[in-house]
Amino acid sequence: MTHRTVFFVSDGTGITAETFGNAILAQFEITPRHVRLPFTDTPDKAHQVVRQINHVHDVEGRRPIVFTTLVDPQMLAILREGCKGMLLDMFGTFVQPIEAELGLKSLHRVGRFSDISRNQAYHDRIEAINFSLQHDDGQSHRDLAGADVILVGVSRSGKTPTSLYLAMQFGLKAANYPLIPEDFERQQLPSALAPWRKKIFGLTIAPERLAEIRAERRPNSRYAALDNCRMEVAEAEAMMRRAGIRWLSTTTKSIEEIATTILQDVRPERLNY
Amino acid sequence: MTHRTVFFVSDGTGITAETFGNAILAQFEITPRHVRLPFTDTPDKAHQVVRQINHVHDVEGRRPIVFTTLVDPQMLAILREGCKGMLLDMFGTFVQPIEAELGLKSLHRVGRFSDISRNQAYHDRIEAINFSLQHDDGQSHRDLAGADVILVGVSRSGKTPTSLYLAMQFGLKAANYPLIPEDFERQQLPSALAPWRKKIFGLTIAPERLAEIRAERRPNSRYAALDNCRMEVAEAEAMMRRAGIRWLSTTTKSIEEIATTILQDVRPERLNY
Repeated sequence: MTHRTVFFVSDGTGITAETFGNAILAQFEITPRHVRLPFTDTPDKAHQVVRQINHVHDVEGRRPIVFTTLVDPQMLAILREGCKGMLLDMFGTFVQPIEAELGLKSLHRVGRFSDISRNQAYHDRIEAINFSLQHDDGQSHRDLAGADVILVGVSRSGKTPTSLYLAMQFGLKAANYPLIPEDFERQQLPSALAPWRKKIFGLTIAPERLAEIRAERRPNSRYAALDNCRMEVAEAEAMMRRAGIRWLSTTTKSIEEIATTILQDVRPERLNY
Repeated sequence: MTHRTVFFVSDGTGITAETFGNAILAQFEITPRHVRLPFTDTPDKAHQVVRQINHVHDVEGRRPIVFTTLVDPQMLAILREGCKGMLLDMFGTFVQPIEAELGLKSLHRVGRFSDISRNQAYHDRIEAINFSLQHDDGQSHRDLAGADVILVGVSRSGKTPTSLYLAMQFGLKAANYPLIPEDFERQQLPSALAPWRKKIFGLTIAPERLAEIRAERRPNSRYAALDNCRMEVAEAEAMMRRAGIRWLSTTTKSIEEIATTILQDVRPERLNY
């Protein structure tokens, strides 16, 4: 295992640099030390970043890897000239060929909104988060007309984190409803959902995995018992099949994979791409 | 305004490709059409992607821009050989120089966990989301010892979306507590929080902006009145100053900027980098 320090340098939050850098580093059998250096937006801070990187270089005797999304040419030049790390310019590498392709100059706009409170897309995203919270776990039947997606499934099948992720990442209003024993007895979806069949998406899960998850919350309960989980999952799947609802199994999937699959299938109108 | 279609092609969810691609495209005065093509993980699907890109090329008479994070060399080769779009290989571009730097071959591991349910970091992240939900808006005083961060501030200062973002993005357990008129009368932080001063971070907001946000929820209410917002913000800031709590103004900041600033300042122990 090679020891390395990896820096993420940005004029903004550095979250893009770190998300993308982590995806690349996941291709290597190393566990590097991470140093996040956000808001590098003045020459003073850029020089400080250079000193910090060079100090690590000298102490460790190895070039640190530096992922940067610096947009301001002045800050980038300070790094390029002074830094002893391996500089990976994630922006310039792609911005320059796109400039040539489009015949347009790039804006060199730092990835921060000058006033986020006036940004409509941002406002919609916060609204979506509030909507998803208010409609978590069947808390409210109001405004379902405004929902982009309605998730259904047994308790602990993954509805809540998926709803919040859809809101946070894609700005979608995602309600979610638990399927409970009363629904199974009636053999029908909760009646409040009947008008919205097209927006409904089901989550299911392997009963063995469900029993594990529920046992973390309520060990040795009827709720977590494997035979009860088997019964609930079978009833929920039968109900979704009868109602003609699309569904997927969350057993081995991440929130991101579940959300992406739902988007491919539901294609909400507000995401017009 | 140049019309272009932009494709995001991935063997996984394509979320990294799209997040990063969007950050780059924000540098240009264009509003491209987005087409997300996730889960491109078989030769059949890769050939279908090529056909779809080439169809757009022929119809629009312009090269589409294709951001790809394909990791599988076979799929990437199919795109490289057949596709008439401008191919931007976001992975290979950086993976190859890092291979040379580290003297290691990359794993060519597709960005999907084969079984997410066995992944500890993922498990911790879901736990953090559940914790943050259970400790939203002062709902619970239990387990505050387990919190990484405790946010305080007046109602609608941005605590809830920030807590959820800290959990979702960084896997941090973020509780949040509203500062309410009863606290101002007592001139003290909620007593349940007293033992956890080091983990507390305050959010404040310009009273004019707060009044706007509250008026969307409860128009013409005392709650949303500007003089009431002025009073609450002044009281909250005085209380945080007295208690020696670090705080920032959320007025013009995005959730990402707020979260990044908090991380720089609080440096929770669990994020050991």
